[in-house]
Amino acid sequence: MVFSSKLIEDAVNEFAKLPGIGKKTALRMVLQLLKKDLAEVEMFTDAVARMRREIQFCTTCHNVSDKEQCEICSNTSRNRAQVCVVENIRDVIAIESTQQYNGTYHLLGGILSPLDGIGPDQLNINTLCDRVANDGVEELIMALSPTIEGDTTVYYIAKQLKDAKVNITTIARGIAFGGELEYADEMTLARSIAKRLPLENYVSLK
Amino acid sequence: MVFSSKLIEDAVNEFAKLPGIGKKTALRMVLQLLKKDLAEVEMFTDAVARMRREIQFCTTCHNVSDKEQCEICSNTSRNRAQVCVVENIRDVIAIESTQQYNGTYHLLGGILSPLDGIGPDQLNINTLCDRVANDGVEELIMALSPTIEGDTTVYYIAKQLKDAKVNITTIARGIAFGGELEYADEMTLARSIAKRLPLENYVSLK
Repeated sequence: MVFSSKLIEDAVNEFAKLPGIGKKTALRMVLQLLKKDLAEVEMFTDAVARMRREIQFCTTCHNVSDKEQCEICSNTSRNRAQVCVVENIRDVIAIESTQQYNGTYHLLGGILSPLDGIGPDQLNINTLCDRVANDGVEELIMALSPTIEGDTTVYYIAKQLKDAKVNITTIARGIAFGGELEYADEMTLARSIAKRLPLENYVSLK
Repeated sequence: MVFSSKLIEDAVNEFAKLPGIGKKTALRMVLQLLKKDLAEVEMFTDAVARMRREIQFCTTCHNVSDKEQCEICSNTSRNRAQVCVVENIRDVIAIESTQQYNGTYHLLGGILSPLDGIGPDQLNINTLCDRVANDGVEELIMALSPTIEGDTTVYYIAKQLKDAKVNITTIARGIAFGGELEYADEMTLARSIAKRLPLENYVSLK
Protein backbone atom coordinates (compact mmCIF):
# COMPACT_ATOMS: atom_id res chain seq x y z
CA MET A 1 0.00 0.00 0.00
CA VAL A 2 1.19 3.48 -0.86
CA PHE A 3 0.10 6.20 1.58
CA SER A 4 0.46 9.86 0.76
CA SER A 5 0.74 10.72 4.48
CA LYS A 6 3.50 9.59 6.84
CA LEU A 7 1.18 10.14 9.82
CA ILE A 8 -1.39 7.72 8.42
CA GLU A 9 1.28 5.24 7.37
CA ASP A 10 2.85 5.14 10.86
CA ALA A 11 -0.52 4.64 12.54
CA VAL A 12 -1.49 1.86 10.10
CA ASN A 13 1.84 0.09 10.61
CA GLU A 14 1.42 0.20 14.38
CA PHE A 15 -2.12 -1.23 14.21
CA ALA A 16 -0.92 -3.94 11.81
CA LYS A 17 1.44 -5.24 14.53
CA LEU A 18 -1.57 -6.35 16.60
CA PRO A 19 -2.55 -10.03 16.37
CA GLY A 20 -4.86 -10.90 13.47
CA ILE A 21 -4.78 -7.37 12.01
CA GLY A 22 -3.61 -6.96 8.40
CA LYS A 23 -2.85 -3.72 6.59
CA LYS A 24 -6.39 -3.33 5.22
CA THR A 25 -8.07 -3.80 8.60
CA ALA A 26 -5.51 -1.47 10.17
CA LEU A 27 -6.35 1.19 7.58
CA ARG A 28 -10.07 0.82 8.29
CA MET A 29 -9.40 1.39 12.01
CA VAL A 30 -7.19 4.40 11.36
CA LEU A 31 -9.76 6.00 9.05
CA GLN A 32 -12.43 5.37 11.67
CA LEU A 33 -10.31 7.08 14.34
CA LEU A 34 -9.69 9.95 11.92
CA LYS A 35 -13.43 10.64 11.84
CA LYS A 36 -13.68 10.87 15.62
CA ASP A 37 -13.07 13.91 17.79
CA LEU A 38 -9.54 14.40 19.08
CA ALA A 39 -10.85 13.94 22.64
CA GLU A 40 -12.26 10.52 21.81
CA VAL A 41 -9.02 9.40 20.17
CA GLU A 42 -7.05 10.61 23.18
CA MET A 43 -9.38 8.63 25.45
CA PHE A 44 -8.43 5.57 23.41
CA THR A 45 -4.67 6.18 23.42
CA ASP A 46 -4.64 7.24 27.09
CA ALA A 47 -6.53 4.11 28.17
CA VAL A 48 -4.05 1.88 26.32
CA ALA A 49 -0.90 3.69 27.49
CA ARG A 50 -2.14 3.92 31.11
CA MET A 51 -3.05 0.24 31.09
CA ARG A 52 0.49 -0.75 30.08
CA ARG A 53 2.18 1.79 32.36
CA GLU A 54 0.21 1.24 35.56
CA ILE A 55 -0.70 -2.43 35.42
CA GLN A 56 0.75 -4.59 38.18
CA PHE A 57 0.73 -8.29 38.87
CA CYS A 58 -0.93 -9.41 42.09
CA THR A 59 1.76 -10.57 44.52
CA THR A 60 -0.52 -13.37 45.74
CA CYS A 61 -2.14 -14.90 42.64
CA HIS A 62 -0.14 -13.27 39.75
CA ASN A 63 -3.32 -11.95 38.14
CA VAL A 64 -3.21 -8.51 36.50
CA SER A 65 -4.10 -5.88 39.03
CA ASP A 66 -4.50 -2.13 39.49
CA LYS A 67 -2.89 -2.37 42.95
CA GLU A 68 -0.30 -4.57 44.67
CA GLN A 69 -3.00 -7.10 45.44
CA CYS A 70 -5.75 -7.78 42.92
CA GLU A 71 -9.45 -7.07 43.47
CA ILE A 72 -10.21 -10.75 43.97
CA CYS A 73 -7.44 -11.48 46.51
CA SER A 74 -8.20 -8.30 48.48
CA ASN A 75 -11.96 -8.97 48.54
CA THR A 76 -12.68 -10.28 52.05
CA SER A 77 -15.97 -11.87 51.00
CA ARG A 78 -14.13 -14.35 48.75
CA ASN A 79 -13.14 -17.74 50.10
CA ARG A 80 -9.34 -17.73 50.37
CA ALA A 81 -9.28 -21.40 51.40
CA GLN A 82 -10.36 -22.32 47.86
CA VAL A 83 -7.86 -21.66 45.06
CA CYS A 84 -8.58 -22.26 41.39
CA VAL A 85 -5.36 -22.95 39.48
CA VAL A 86 -5.45 -21.62 35.89
CA GLU A 87 -3.03 -20.89 33.08
CA ASN A 88 -3.65 -17.20 32.41
CA ILE A 89 -5.73 -14.03 32.70
CA ARG A 90 -8.13 -15.16 29.99
CA ASP A 91 -9.16 -18.18 32.11
CA VAL A 92 -9.83 -15.94 35.13
CA ILE A 93 -12.06 -13.70 32.99
CA ALA A 94 -13.94 -16.76 31.67
CA ILE A 95 -14.57 -18.19 35.16
CA GLU A 96 -15.40 -14.79 36.70
CA SER A 97 -17.92 -14.21 33.90
CA THR A 98 -19.91 -17.27 35.09
CA GLN A 99 -20.43 -15.41 38.43
CA GLN A 100 -20.62 -18.81 40.12
CA TYR A 101 -17.20 -19.06 41.74
CA ASN A 102 -16.42 -17.38 45.04
CA GLY A 103 -12.90 -18.62 45.77
CA THR A 104 -9.58 -17.12 44.69
CA TYR A 105 -7.19 -17.93 41.83
CA HIS A 106 -3.58 -18.80 41.15
CA LEU A 107 -2.20 -18.07 37.68
CA LEU A 108 0.59 -20.41 36.62
CA GLY A 109 1.51 -18.22 33.63
CA GLY A 110 1.38 -21.24 31.30
CA ILE A 111 1.57 -25.03 31.50
CA LEU A 112 4.50 -27.46 31.46
CA SER A 113 5.65 -27.89 27.88
CA PRO A 114 9.19 -29.25 27.49
CA LEU A 115 9.06 -28.80 23.69
CA ASP A 116 8.55 -25.04 24.17
CA GLY A 117 11.19 -24.91 26.90
CA ILE A 118 8.61 -24.32 29.64
CA GLY A 119 9.62 -26.21 32.77
CA PRO A 120 8.47 -25.85 36.40
CA ASP A 121 10.85 -22.88 36.95
CA GLN A 122 9.08 -20.83 34.27
CA LEU A 123 5.72 -21.25 36.01
CA ASN A 124 4.38 -19.83 39.27
CA ILE A 125 4.46 -23.21 41.03
CA ASN A 126 6.71 -22.29 43.96
CA THR A 127 4.45 -19.46 45.03
CA LEU A 128 1.49 -21.87 44.82
CA CYS A 129 3.26 -24.29 47.17
CA ASP A 130 3.98 -21.35 49.53
CA ARG A 131 0.31 -20.38 49.54
CA VAL A 132 -0.69 -23.97 50.34
CA ALA A 133 1.88 -24.13 53.16
CA ASN A 134 1.18 -20.74 54.75
CA ASP A 135 -2.20 -19.42 53.70
CA GLY A 136 -4.65 -22.00 55.01
CA VAL A 137 -5.60 -23.25 51.52
CA GLU A 138 -7.96 -26.23 51.81
CA GLU A 139 -8.78 -26.97 48.19
CA LEU A 140 -6.96 -26.53 44.89
CA ILE A 141 -9.30 -26.69 41.88
CA MET A 142 -7.18 -27.51 38.84
CA ALA A 143 -8.76 -25.76 35.81
CA LEU A 144 -6.13 -26.42 33.16
CA SER A 145 -6.57 -27.43 29.50
CA PRO A 146 -7.54 -31.10 29.05
CA THR A 147 -4.37 -31.83 27.08
CA ILE A 148 -1.31 -33.95 27.78
CA GLU A 149 0.56 -30.81 28.90
CA GLY A 150 -2.32 -29.78 31.14
CA ASP A 151 -2.56 -33.23 32.73
CA THR A 152 1.23 -33.36 33.19
CA THR A 153 1.08 -30.01 34.98
CA VAL A 154 -1.69 -31.27 37.27
CA TYR A 155 0.31 -34.40 38.16
CA TYR A 156 3.50 -32.38 38.71
CA ILE A 157 1.76 -30.00 41.12
CA ALA A 158 0.01 -32.89 42.91
CA LYS A 159 3.41 -34.57 43.40
CA GLN A 160 4.93 -31.38 44.83
CA LEU A 161 2.07 -31.17 47.30
CA LYS A 162 1.73 -34.83 48.22
CA ASP A 163 2.68 -34.15 51.87
CA ALA A 164 0.51 -31.06 52.20
CA LYS A 165 -2.97 -31.25 53.73
CA VAL A 166 -4.81 -29.94 50.70
CA ASN A 167 -7.64 -31.42 48.71
CA ILE A 168 -6.85 -31.36 44.98
CA THR A 169 -9.78 -31.51 42.53
CA THR A 170 -10.17 -30.88 38.81
CA ILE A 171 -13.06 -29.26 37.00
CA ALA A 172 -15.58 -31.71 35.54
CA ARG A 173 -15.08 -32.87 31.95
CA GLY A 174 -17.96 -34.09 29.87
CA ILE A 175 -20.46 -33.28 27.18
CA ALA A 176 -21.17 -29.53 27.08
CA PHE A 177 -24.68 -28.23 27.69
CA GLY A 178 -26.37 -28.07 24.31
CA GLY A 179 -23.67 -30.32 22.86
CA GLU A 180 -24.80 -33.29 20.81
CA LEU A 181 -23.47 -36.74 21.58
CA GLU A 182 -22.63 -37.60 17.98
CA TYR A 183 -20.32 -34.59 17.64
CA ALA A 184 -18.43 -35.14 20.90
CA ASP A 185 -14.90 -36.48 20.51
CA GLU A 186 -14.30 -40.06 21.65
CA MET A 187 -12.10 -39.13 24.59
CA THR A 188 -14.69 -36.78 26.08
CA LEU A 189 -17.51 -39.22 25.49
CA ALA A 190 -15.57 -42.15 26.96
CA ARG A 191 -14.61 -40.11 30.04
CA SER A 192 -18.14 -38.85 30.55
CA ILE A 193 -19.45 -42.44 30.55
CA ALA A 194 -16.71 -43.64 32.89
CA LYS A 195 -17.31 -40.69 35.26
CA ARG A 196 -21.12 -40.94 35.10
CA LEU A 197 -23.09 -39.38 37.96
CA PRO A 198 -26.07 -40.63 39.97
CA LEU A 199 -29.29 -38.98 38.82
CA GLU A 200 -29.65 -36.88 41.99
CA ASN A 201 -26.45 -35.01 40.98
CA TYR A 202 -27.94 -34.15 37.61
CA VAL A 203 -27.75 -30.42 37.01
CA SER A 204 -29.74 -28.98 34.18
CA LEU A 205 -30.13 -25.42 32.94
CA LYS A 206 -33.27 -24.79 34.99
CA MET B 1 -17.15 -10.29 30.56
CA VAL B 2 -16.01 -9.64 34.11
CA PHE B 3 -12.54 -8.09 34.45
CA SER B 4 -10.76 -7.91 37.75
CA SER B 5 -8.83 -4.83 36.63
CA LYS B 6 -10.29 -1.45 35.72
CA LEU B 7 -7.21 -0.63 33.63
CA ILE B 8 -7.71 -3.73 31.47
CA GLU B 9 -11.45 -3.15 31.27
CA ASP B 10 -11.04 0.45 30.06
CA ALA B 11 -8.51 -0.53 27.39
CA VAL B 12 -10.71 -3.41 26.17
CA ASN B 13 -13.76 -1.15 25.97
CA GLU B 14 -11.82 1.43 23.94
CA PHE B 15 -10.58 -1.21 21.48
CA ALA B 16 -14.09 -2.64 21.19
CA LYS B 17 -15.30 0.72 19.81
CA LEU B 18 -13.23 0.16 16.65
CA PRO B 19 -15.08 -1.22 13.59
CA GLY B 20 -15.40 -5.00 13.47
CA ILE B 21 -13.78 -5.50 16.89
CA GLY B 22 -15.77 -7.38 19.54
CA LYS B 23 -14.92 -7.76 23.21
CA LYS B 24 -12.99 -11.02 22.72
CA THR B 25 -10.80 -9.66 19.93
CA ALA B 26 -10.27 -6.47 21.94
CA LEU B 27 -9.12 -8.55 24.92
CA ARG B 28 -6.67 -10.47 22.70
CA MET B 29 -5.17 -7.17 21.52
CA VAL B 30 -4.90 -5.78 25.03
CA LEU B 31 -3.22 -8.94 26.34
CA GLN B 32 -0.80 -8.80 23.40
CA LEU B 33 0.06 -5.17 24.19
CA LEU B 34 0.49 -6.14 27.85
CA LYS B 35 3.31 -8.52 26.86
CA LYS B 36 5.19 -5.81 24.97
CA ASP B 37 7.68 -3.32 26.38
CA LEU B 38 6.30 -0.01 27.58
CA ALA B 39 8.34 1.74 24.85
CA GLU B 40 6.66 -0.31 22.11
CA VAL B 41 3.19 0.38 23.49
CA GLU B 42 3.99 4.09 23.68
CA MET B 43 5.15 4.00 20.05
CA PHE B 44 1.70 2.63 19.20
CA THR B 45 -0.29 5.14 21.22
CA ASP B 46 1.91 8.08 20.15
CA ALA B 47 1.55 7.20 16.46
CA VAL B 48 -2.23 7.07 16.79
CA ALA B 49 -2.57 10.25 18.87
CA ARG B 50 -0.13 12.19 16.66
CA MET B 51 -1.94 11.04 13.54
CA ARG B 52 -5.26 12.42 14.82
CA ARG B 53 -3.74 15.61 16.27
CA GLU B 54 -1.51 16.64 13.37
CA ILE B 55 -3.37 15.40 10.32
CA GLN B 56 -4.55 18.09 7.91
CA PHE B 57 -6.68 18.02 4.80
CA CYS B 58 -5.02 19.22 1.60
CA THR B 59 -6.48 22.59 0.62
CA THR B 60 -6.34 21.60 -3.06
CA CYS B 61 -7.57 17.99 -3.28
CA HIS B 62 -8.98 17.34 0.26
CA ASN B 63 -6.76 14.29 0.72
CA VAL B 64 -5.26 13.66 4.17
CA SER B 65 -1.94 15.40 4.45
CA ASP B 66 0.94 16.07 6.83
CA LYS B 67 1.17 19.66 5.58
CA GLU B 68 -1.21 22.29 4.16
CA GLN B 69 -0.80 20.75 0.72
CA CYS B 70 -0.52 16.99 0.34
CA GLU B 71 2.54 15.15 -0.99
CA ILE B 72 0.83 14.47 -4.30
CA CYS B 73 -0.36 18.03 -4.99
CA SER B 74 2.99 19.51 -3.96
CA ASN B 75 5.00 17.05 -6.09
CA THR B 76 6.05 19.04 -9.16
CA SER B 77 6.68 15.90 -11.22
CA ARG B 78 2.98 14.99 -11.13
CA ASN B 79 0.67 16.11 -13.92
CA ARG B 80 -1.63 18.76 -12.43
CA ALA B 81 -3.63 19.00 -15.67
CA GLN B 82 -4.99 15.51 -15.00
CA VAL B 83 -7.31 15.11 -12.00
CA CYS B 84 -8.74 11.78 -10.86
CA VAL B 85 -12.05 12.30 -9.02
CA VAL B 86 -12.59 9.75 -6.22
CA GLU B 87 -14.81 9.27 -3.20
CA ASN B 88 -12.30 8.97 -0.39
CA ILE B 89 -8.78 8.33 0.93
CA ARG B 90 -9.12 4.59 0.46
CA ASP B 91 -9.54 5.06 -3.30
CA VAL B 92 -6.43 7.24 -3.47
CA ILE B 93 -4.42 4.55 -1.65
CA ALA B 94 -5.75 1.89 -4.05
CA ILE B 95 -4.84 3.90 -7.17
CA GLU B 96 -1.47 5.04 -5.79
CA SER B 97 -0.62 1.42 -5.00
CA THR B 98 -0.85 0.57 -8.72
CA GLN B 99 2.06 3.02 -9.28
CA GLN B 100 0.67 3.65 -12.77
CA TYR B 101 -1.02 7.04 -12.33
CA ASN B 102 0.95 10.25 -12.44
CA GLY B 103 -1.82 12.88 -12.24
CA THR B 104 -3.40 14.43 -9.15
CA TYR B 105 -6.64 13.69 -7.28
CA HIS B 106 -9.79 15.33 -6.04
CA LEU B 107 -11.63 13.73 -3.12
CA LEU B 108 -15.37 14.34 -3.12
CA GLY B 109 -15.77 13.02 0.42
CA GLY B 110 -18.60 10.72 -0.67
CA ILE B 111 -21.10 10.41 -3.51
CA LEU B 112 -24.56 11.87 -4.04
CA SER B 113 -27.06 9.87 -2.02
CA PRO B 114 -30.37 11.63 -1.33
CA LEU B 115 -31.55 8.76 0.89
CA ASP B 116 -28.59 9.37 3.24
CA GLY B 117 -29.07 13.14 3.04
CA ILE B 118 -25.92 13.66 0.97
CA GLY B 119 -26.50 16.37 -1.63
CA PRO B 120 -24.03 18.40 -3.71
CA ASP B 121 -23.40 20.78 -0.79
CA GLN B 122 -22.06 17.98 1.38
CA LEU B 123 -19.46 17.06 -1.25
CA ASN B 124 -16.34 18.88 -2.45
CA ILE B 125 -17.87 19.70 -5.85
CA ASN B 126 -17.51 23.51 -5.70
CA THR B 127 -13.77 23.31 -5.13
CA LEU B 128 -13.53 20.88 -8.05
CA CYS B 129 -15.27 23.41 -10.33
CA ASP B 130 -12.87 26.10 -9.05
CA ARG B 131 -9.87 23.91 -9.89
CA VAL B 132 -11.22 23.31 -13.39
CA ALA B 133 -11.84 27.05 -13.88
CA ASN B 134 -8.55 28.33 -12.46
CA ASP B 135 -5.92 25.57 -12.36
CA GLY B 136 -5.50 24.58 -15.99
CA VAL B 137 -7.15 21.16 -15.54
CA GLU B 138 -7.44 19.42 -18.93
CA GLU B 139 -8.87 16.03 -17.95
CA LEU B 140 -11.12 14.79 -15.15
CA ILE B 141 -10.96 11.01 -14.73
CA MET B 142 -14.09 9.94 -12.86
CA ALA B 143 -13.20 6.94 -10.68
CA LEU B 144 -16.41 6.51 -8.68
CA SER B 145 -18.27 3.33 -7.74
CA PRO B 146 -20.21 1.81 -10.66
CA THR B 147 -23.53 2.21 -8.82
CA ILE B 148 -26.58 4.35 -9.44
CA GLU B 149 -25.26 6.90 -6.87
CA GLY B 150 -21.85 6.90 -8.53
CA ASP B 151 -23.29 7.40 -12.01
CA THR B 152 -25.60 10.16 -10.72
CA THR B 153 -22.61 11.94 -9.22
CA VAL B 154 -20.70 11.69 -12.51
CA TYR B 155 -23.66 13.15 -14.44
CA TYR B 156 -24.16 15.92 -11.88
CA ILE B 157 -20.51 17.00 -12.08
CA ALA B 158 -20.52 16.78 -15.89
CA LYS B 159 -23.58 19.04 -15.94
CA GLN B 160 -21.91 21.61 -13.67
CA LEU B 161 -18.91 21.66 -16.00
CA LYS B 162 -20.72 21.58 -19.35
CA ASP B 163 -19.39 25.04 -20.29
CA ALA B 164 -15.84 24.36 -19.10
CA LYS B 165 -13.13 23.27 -21.52
CA VAL B 166 -12.33 20.01 -19.74
CA ASN B 167 -12.27 16.47 -21.04
CA ILE B 168 -14.28 14.17 -18.72
CA THR B 169 -13.50 10.43 -18.84
CA THR B 170 -14.38 7.48 -16.63
CA ILE B 171 -12.22 4.53 -15.71
CA ALA B 172 -12.77 1.43 -17.85
CA ARG B 173 -15.30 -1.16 -16.65
CA GLY B 174 -15.05 -4.73 -17.75
CA ILE B 175 -14.01 -8.22 -16.81
CA ALA B 176 -11.16 -8.16 -14.27
CA PHE B 177 -7.82 -9.73 -15.13
CA GLY B 178 -7.98 -13.33 -13.99
CA GLY B 179 -11.76 -13.09 -13.78
CA GLU B 180 -13.77 -15.82 -15.44
CA LEU B 181 -16.56 -14.91 -17.84
CA GLU B 182 -19.09 -17.27 -16.31
CA TYR B 183 -18.81 -15.61 -12.89
CA ALA B 184 -19.07 -12.01 -14.15
CA ASP B 185 -22.37 -10.28 -13.44
CA GLU B 186 -24.62 -9.60 -16.42
CA MET B 187 -24.26 -5.82 -16.29
CA THR B 188 -20.45 -5.95 -16.40
CA LEU B 189 -20.43 -8.59 -19.14
CA ALA B 190 -22.98 -6.69 -21.25
CA ARG B 191 -21.05 -3.43 -20.89
CA SER B 192 -17.73 -5.06 -21.71
CA ILE B 193 -19.19 -6.45 -24.94
CA ALA B 194 -20.81 -3.13 -25.87
CA LYS B 195 -17.55 -1.25 -25.14
CA ARG B 196 -15.29 -3.80 -26.85
CA LEU B 197 -11.84 -2.63 -27.97
CA PRO B 198 -9.90 -3.18 -31.19
CA LEU B 199 -7.21 -5.82 -30.74
CA GLU B 200 -4.34 -3.31 -30.92
CA ASN B 201 -5.63 -1.77 -27.67
CA TYR B 202 -5.47 -5.12 -25.92
CA VAL B 203 -3.41 -4.86 -22.76
CA SER B 204 -2.31 -8.06 -21.10
CA LEU B 205 -0.29 -8.65 -17.96
CA LYS B 206 3.02 -8.95 -19.81
